[in-house]
Amino acid sequence: MTAAAKTRKSFGSDNHSGTHPAVMRAIVEANSGDAVAYGADPWTERATSELRRLAGADGEAYLVLNGSGANILGLGLLLARHEAVICAESAHINTDECGGAERVLGTKLLTVPSPDGKLTPELIASRLTGRGDEHFAQPGVVAITQSTEFGTCYSLAELSKIRDFCADNDLQVFMDGARLANAAAYLGCSLAELAEHADVLSFGGTKNGAMGVEAVIVMRSSDTASAPYLRKQHMQLSSKMRFLAAQFNALLEDDLWLRNARHANAMASRLATGLADLPGVEMVYPVEADAVFARLSRAHIAELQREWTFHVWDEETSVVRWMTAFDTQESDVDEFLASIAATAPGGARA
Amino acid sequence: MTAAAKTRKSFGSDNHSGTHPAVMRAIVEANSGDAVAYGADPWTERATSELRRLAGADGEAYLVLNGSGANILGLGLLLARHEAVICAESAHINTDECGGAERVLGTKLLTVPSPDGKLTPELIASRLTGRGDEHFAQPGVVAITQSTEFGTCYSLAELSKIRDFCADNDLQVFMDGARLANAAAYLGCSLAELAEHADVLSFGGTKNGAMGVEAVIVMRSSDTASAPYLRKQHMQLSSKMRFLAAQFNALLEDDLWLRNARHANAMASRLATGLADLPGVEMVYPVEADAVFARLSRAHIAELQREWTFHVWDEETSVVRWMTAFDTQESDVDEFLASIAATAPGGARA
Amino acid sequence: MTAAAKTRKSFGSDNHSGTHPAVMRAIVEANSGDAVAYGADPWTERATSELRRLAGADGEAYLVLNGSGANILGLGLLLARHEAVICAESAHINTDECGGAERVLGTKLLTVPSPDGKLTPELIASRLTGRGDEHFAQPGVVAITQSTEFGTCYSLAELSKIRDFCADNDLQVFMDGARLANAAAYLGCSLAELAEHADVLSFGGTKNGAMGVEAVIVMRSSDTASAPYLRKQHMQLSSKMRFLAAQFNALLEDDLWLRNARHANAMASRLATGLADLPGVEMVYPVEADAVFARLSRAHIAELQREWTFHVWDEETSVVRWMTAFDTQESDVDEFLASIAATAPGGARA
Amino acid sequence: MTAAAKTRKSFGSDNHSGTHPAVMRAIVEANSGDAVAYGADPWTERATSELRRLAGADGEAYLVLNGSGANILGLGLLLARHEAVICAESAHINTDECGGAERVLGTKLLTVPSPDGKLTPELIASRLTGRGDEHFAQPGVVAITQSTEFGTCYSLAELSKIRDFCADNDLQVFMDGARLANAAAYLGCSLAELAEHADVLSFGGTKNGAMGVEAVIVMRSSDTASAPYLRKQHMQLSSKMRFLAAQFNALLEDDLWLRNARHANAMASRLATGLADLPGVEMVYPVEADAVFARLSRAHIAELQREWTFHVWDEETSVVRWMTAFDTQESDVDEFLASIAATAPGGARA
Repeated sequence: MTAAAKTRKSFGSDNHSGTHPAVMRAIVEANSGDAVAYGADPWTERATSELRRLAGADGEAYLVLNGSGANILGLGLLLARHEAVICAESAHINTDECGGAERVLGTKLLTVPSPDGKLTPELIASRLTGRGDEHFAQPGVVAITQSTEFGTCYSLAELSKIRDFCADNDLQVFMDGARLANAAAYLGCSLAELAEHADVLSFGGTKNGAMGVEAVIVMRSSDTASAPYLRKQHMQLSSKMRFLAAQFNALLEDDLWLRNARHANAMASRLATGLADLPGVEMVYPVEADAVFARLSRAHIAELQREWTFHVWDEETSVVRWMTAFDTQESDVDEFLASIAATAPGGARA
Repeated sequence: MTAAAKTRKSFGSDNHSGTHPAVMRAIVEANSGDAVAYGADPWTERATSELRRLAGADGEAYLVLNGSGANILGLGLLLARHEAVICAESAHINTDECGGAERVLGTKLLTVPSPDGKLTPELIASRLTGRGDEHFAQPGVVAITQSTEFGTCYSLAELSKIRDFCADNDLQVFMDGARLANAAAYLGCSLAELAEHADVLSFGGTKNGAMGVEAVIVMRSSDTASAPYLRKQHMQLSSKMRFLAAQFNALLEDDLWLRNARHANAMASRLATGLADLPGVEMVYPVEADAVFARLSRAHIAELQREWTFHVWDEETSVVRWMTAFDTQESDVDEFLASIAATAPGGARA
Repeated sequence: MTAAAKTRKSFGSDNHSGTHPAVMRAIVEANSGDAVAYGADPWTERATSELRRLAGADGEAYLVLNGSGANILGLGLLLARHEAVICAESAHINTDECGGAERVLGTKLLTVPSPDGKLTPELIASRLTGRGDEHFAQPGVVAITQSTEFGTCYSLAELSKIRDFCADNDLQVFMDGARLANAAAYLGCSLAELAEHADVLSFGGTKNGAMGVEAVIVMRSSDTASAPYLRKQHMQLSSKMRFLAAQFNALLEDDLWLRNARHANAMASRLATGLADLPGVEMVYPVEADAVFARLSRAHIAELQREWTFHVWDEETSVVRWMTAFDTQESDVDEFLASIAATAPGGARA
Repeated sequence: MTAAAKTRKSFGSDNHSGTHPAVMRAIVEANSGDAVAYGADPWTERATSELRRLAGADGEAYLVLNGSGANILGLGLLLARHEAVICAESAHINTDECGGAERVLGTKLLTVPSPDGKLTPELIASRLTGRGDEHFAQPGVVAITQSTEFGTCYSLAELSKIRDFCADNDLQVFMDGARLANAAAYLGCSLAELAEHADVLSFGGTKNGAMGVEAVIVMRSSDTASAPYLRKQHMQLSSKMRFLAAQFNALLEDDLWLRNARHANAMASRLATGLADLPGVEMVYPVEADAVFARLSRAHIAELQREWTFHVWDEETSVVRWMTAFDTQESDVDEFLASIAATAPGGARA
């Protein structure tokens, strides 16, 4: 897309949205006088203590600069130097971070094909052969994404099974929560009810309405020793930290994070509902968060992309990904639905 | 310092300042509608093309999230896999980044004691023994900081000598420009006149009035191949990039970057001038940028720190570092000078 | 196996064999007087120049300590800092080196399922999506194993296709030649005819009758600049190098390497031929080198393992791997065949 | 040196010697029949259990391929992911391994100038500033070399002080024992009396008469979890391990390791004694192991090097290093002394 060319709401990514007005206000308000750098400021104290409280963490919360930074730091806190990570083939750390985990942590990702982006004890178990044999990579951490890269959510029961299996098998759990808010909104549960299934998790601000901030939450205080230093070594320590913290402070005030996620989810749901009766458009995954994956003809896709911004997820299977966001309007969805219908084979503009 | 306790202007760091109003305005203005993520937006196009132009670079400019990110990415673009870096012992990459270069790049820093933070051909040559011998770390890059960590500036003649020496000795030059603006202001030269002495350089926004953004400028297009991927692997790629770019756009408009740097330098100069006649306060380095290093008694330091925020640079030698910034006022300096005089041994409050 | 318990020839690995007598003689003979350390000795000069000559290499040959060392050094010489490796899922670097390539090189392995352990241009192409997109790992090297981990061999025509495809697609070729001798023996071609299809290759001594030595052969002199230093950093530089070199000198004299490989291949072939008529034993891959993969019942395997040493390759599919070596005797094979027959369901001892 | 040109005993390195005859015999004898690969053989069991016993270790002993491999593995077992190493500037890991520790472990070496190659609590303390501050590299391990790179030995009292200081300061101790035997011989103490001052140590075979093998000894069993996997990832796992183990078995039988070290030390001592009365040759360090460092004129060095093999240690200060070994004869020393005298300024051949 050329940004100038398309004035319609993007369904390309929850990253295409700007910053939520309340977050922007908080940033502007934080710009008052001096503050000690690197997090020794009251904004950061407020944000991290509130994040700890919300997650029910005995450990600590660390603000970082982006999602890859959160994932790679979080994994680094849990992995012994020689250990590998079990994750779904579709995991963001495997497919979308350019090999950053391997580069920065030197770890191997032991991937598992997963039809809906979720791991299960059975899938995890399939990568446990060779434990104790020095020739095989040794998994130490299981990485799950909640909500997943396919817009599905682990239920609390599914998370419990994974946590229990991992505890029984000397594995720790890292939860990539770039869209954790969307999962909490879908499941109607608290952040703590999600966080208790992980040893370390990330909690995403950016896709939720922030300008650019994520948190790494360490559940146990015994796992925090390396965190400040690894964050610095990983180039994830911000000097004017108050401007990161202010973003979370805005998101955490009056549950803005949850309201934003509920709204985005509702817009995806509205889109999915509207698609239900459209011939030629097939839903690929259950719509549980802010993503809609659909299969439609190549010609249909091409026609739609003339006016709308979105990504083809898989050229071969002709599957697209449509994302909603905190600022997607009902009218945006309805207009988009109308376009989809109109450009469908046999539709008004087809 | 507890941020709440001290309302006086901090002389602790140019990172203690907030965001310049024009930069904040640009951020707020960029928050309009959607933009494609990760830099395919018009703000980024404008910022990077202007940075290229200002630096006279044939290569490319890459926006990153902080100074360590800029340094480590910049070095990574120049280093062959096995190579080491020659730098001053006082270099930020050696003393202040927690070993990040070693962690992320796996490179060794071959340090040289330098009285004023500057390298010279002679000092560089002192680390070239053992080239061609597989037992010794093999330097491939010389890293210099402009302005230096001690607030001194390389003259253009000094830079030329280093560049020539490096060219003759098969070494590339990385310039850590976290405070490059202050050097340009001091030397009265263009960014391009500085940049031409480096193969890759960073250009700092954060200490110059930005909220948090730095640029890595690659001078030759032949050195850019790895850059987008290393930036991603190093967790330095921002999704809502427009908010980084907007900061540079504000700084580059009407030479705000240069005016900010000139102002900060002038404030440091005013402070230094005011100190000249103060007994018991000894200047340690020439004041050429926005830093004043001074030696004063421990008791004097302790007394001053009751009201003012600044760092003791070296406990042993009783040296402090006083930093000015784009928002330091003449009255701040004068008030600080009055306090220094009043708390001096034999002064009004001593 | 407890080494003491089984006196019959192992079919477990070509690593279970000792050192060929001629190699041992060369080691003993090299133990005469002093020699300069780290390779500046006449044994090493002779070995590396002969390896270069045999491979038709303009570059250089480097002796290293083991197969993982050869693979990881070889890949490191070809990979740009940010690049990834395409390889078969079954590649030794992926399955048997504990994640060493990721740990030491920080590279990602982009794996492809391959039915017979071989890559093809089509399989390689399947991992090229996402090139030029900074979110995706960027392949720079294709790693192939000759002969493969499944005992199959690429034909020269197959190698040519891969080389051409890679040249057309800006990919370099690393050839894991831990059993390259077996491939040369099977194909009846020279080492140079194999080597010309790679940019860097390893040439294995250990499985061929050495005590422990491998060579990394760099085909182009322009690719050698990092090699001595990376070898040292990778802990692959031997101080008393003459004892590594002497092993290759023995293997290269009068084509002992080729004779050893022909013999091992012939023994595998004899085993395969003998199995052909055995009901209940199914050959899994063509037998082209020194490995026989066979599927037989779990009970049959268990019975055989009471007297013979070998590995179950895949518990689930009940596939075993039987390896021959330079010192496997016809009588060993025949005795083993007799045991297999006798322990078969319905056999004499079943 | 060209190996062919100089038939006199090398004083260049204890690596210039070949393999002790008893070690070679053990290697030849181990070449009998098959053995399971990678250490599951009786030779390895014997060597590692004897090494554990001699060192008084509750943990485990791991055979590796060379000294860099031992050092880097040993450090890796003790370092948390983010931690740095304190060592003497002259430490082998800092000066002679091409930056391998930084490359493979991603760790920073915090070096301390040390006049005689030894650390002290005071010298260690000088690198502890900045602990707990995320901007500074965080030391987790102190690496000492026994005997040192300058041929000096820590006394047991000196080791105790370091061990106690480290215990009090949350630091672990790695002992580079490439020449540990020489220290035991000099101090007249057991291996266990040395080992108890370290958390992990290496024990060198190669310089002591082996063909090429070192041991990494982990004192506590709680520190062994990563060891087999890191050894493999670091490319230090040998397939035909029995040939490594056999070397240690020979060295450990009837204290051959100690006898070899005593002999080498005695030869260095004989050399030092003979030099005492020679004008123009100044001893630089106490001669406590198998190394003699001497200062003599450049002309004298040049004249001597026409017939003898040795290294100039420091061109600038005109210091040479003369090493003895298990196979240096009294007559070699005497002949060398005669040459030194004869080539001295004013000597017979000067």
